[in-house]
Amino acid sequence: MSFVIPSLPVLDADLAVRLSAKIAGKAKPPGSLGRVELLAEQIGLIQNTETPHVERAEAYVFAGDHGMNAEGVSAYPSAITTAMAVTFLAGKASVNAFASACGVEVRVVDAGVDGDLPAHPGLIDAKVRKGTRNAAREPALTADEVAEALGRGADIAAGSTADVLVIGEMGIGNTASATLIMHRLAPAPLEDCIGLGAGHDAEGLARKSDILSRAAKRSDAVGPLDVLAEFGGLEIAMMAGAYLGGAAAGKIMIVDGFISSAAALVAVRLEPELERRLVFAHVSAERGHRLMLNALNAAPLLQLDMRLGEGSGGVLAVPIARAAARLMTETASLEDVISGAVTP
Amino acid sequence: MSFVIPSLPVLDADLAVRLSAKIAGKAKPPGSLGRVELLAEQIGLIQNTETPHVERAEAYVFAGDHGMNAEGVSAYPSAITTAMAVTFLAGKASVNAFASACGVEVRVVDAGVDGDLPAHPGLIDAKVRKGTRNAAREPALTADEVAEALGRGADIAAGSTADVLVIGEMGIGNTASATLIMHRLAPAPLEDCIGLGAGHDAEGLARKSDILSRAAKRSDAVGPLDVLAEFGGLEIAMMAGAYLGGAAAGKIMIVDGFISSAAALVAVRLEPELERRLVFAHVSAERGHRLMLNALNAAPLLQLDMRLGEGSGGVLAVPIARAAARLMTETASLEDVISGAVTP
Repeated sequence: MSFVIPSLPVLDADLAVRLSAKIAGKAKPPGSLGRVELLAEQIGLIQNTETPHVERAEAYVFAGDHGMNAEGVSAYPSAITTAMAVTFLAGKASVNAFASACGVEVRVVDAGVDGDLPAHPGLIDAKVRKGTRNAAREPALTADEVAEALGRGADIAAGSTADVLVIGEMGIGNTASATLIMHRLAPAPLEDCIGLGAGHDAEGLARKSDILSRAAKRSDAVGPLDVLAEFGGLEIAMMAGAYLGGAAAGKIMIVDGFISSAAALVAVRLEPELERRLVFAHVSAERGHRLMLNALNAAPLLQLDMRLGEGSGGVLAVPIARAAARLMTETASLEDVISGAVTP
Repeated sequence: MSFVIPSLPVLDADLAVRLSAKIAGKAKPPGSLGRVELLAEQIGLIQNTETPHVERAEAYVFAGDHGMNAEGVSAYPSAITTAMAVTFLAGKASVNAFASACGVEVRVVDAGVDGDLPAHPGLIDAKVRKGTRNAAREPALTADEVAEALGRGADIAAGSTADVLVIGEMGIGNTASATLIMHRLAPAPLEDCIGLGAGHDAEGLARKSDILSRAAKRSDAVGPLDVLAEFGGLEIAMMAGAYLGGAAAGKIMIVDGFISSAAALVAVRLEPELERRLVFAHVSAERGHRLMLNALNAAPLLQLDMRLGEGSGGVLAVPIARAAARLMTETASLEDVISGAVTP
């Protein structure tokens, strides 16, 4: 099988001018809402309207395991992926706490967990296989598995009835995959992409660095699909598909942290028009994230020294996106305020 | 009359240790929620509990006019203050749009608008007088007026039934008052405190600088109450009172931008224990704000290049405060996740 990349129309330059003029005419000093004004314009362009609507929000947590974790790229064992997926379903993880605080619904997607998850209304079973192969020794995925994951991700996002989707993840060892993807697709020297992940000490970091160098030497892939096949993972491929499918369906797509951004990088390399449609929630404390954001020409909204993943940072950006949309539809114009047309 | 400064108990150091341990035991890599973890600890300390509750939120927009505006310290005429207060009541200003997006209720407080506002369920009439005197030529307020404003602000905040209060403002010319307050209470050289306000060009800035120098030369006041009396304004004094009264009542008090921070600076100089109880929402694009935040030992949550006031930045921090509280009460411990005690 093969994945058909959704084509995205070029954003409407005339609409951009009208949106900008509408924002400038609001009852406030010009430019005084800074980044929120830029976000309002972007949201209008994505929804192709001067009256955007951003209310219902979902956070999709894509979960998958990584064969490379057998080498010790993470401070945690793979079993934690399944245990945390169960915790998301139970509504007891940090992303659930943040989501309930921000009016966001959480969905869990089994992209390739190396374990069995119980049937649950909040679970989407899209498992391609139980974990990837060990990318330090062999390609993590076949081309078919990559296409399958991309397609399922695109379908999930396109099928959502929400206005805004946060793309989050859980996968022990996936910082390692994301690091290799960034190295090839940013591109950037491998040593600039390696960070502490979820919880390495200096010794763990040195080991991770050795393993990643070994994996990188195994293949000189630089095409986005080849890079996904070589280095994984299933959740990253499915997230890349979700960005593309969701954007093609006119959704506001929110990027979370380092791994979510690596998936965005894959998707943008497949369809460059995606880049201007992505809302980057935050800059993570993971070392390479700023550099990866630069490769995506991204200006993230938040900087809270977070590095958890799960979509936790993305969820915190949802109220800002809602506020930006409401600026367009609820804030009066300066003209109406001065003329007395606004009455309590 | 005189204002009795509410005394705030020292925050419980033992509780801080317990809160920190509870956060460290959550199902996530230690420290991986960065600033949100620090906020969760602060909120627990303010509410004096390991299970904080942050749900109902109100934004109070304190409005007042400034006699000094006759000199040309602002790019806008004083009549805009009344027009915008009407707009807040109509639910049509940016703070209303942001507040509805973030689940926050807006209240308007007439602290000293130089105009008449219509009776409205969302309006609290606490008017001390119609605008301040011209601080470039004479003291803006009497000691009695300052005490009256502080007391009314404290009563308003203490009487709220919300968990969290955003302290915002509207007052044409109040950046000028806030600049003089910062100059004396930070303290900092006047020229480091002067910025563009709501919308000055270079010529307007030079004029503002001249007027502020003249006002500063008129008095060498350095005590917080004297500085308020010399330079105003009524909304700033009332906001300072609100911080103190709200904090004494155990509310989470959120500071907005430059003017809101100047009021916080007054309040902290009156009661230093307040400092650790304030949640600083964002760093404004107004030039002196970073320096003022430094004087308050503040680490703001957001940096969105906003400089509107109205409480607009403060409102955007409310969902983050709710998320921090829910981290304490809804996120499972790592122990429970690993032992299998968490089930869907």
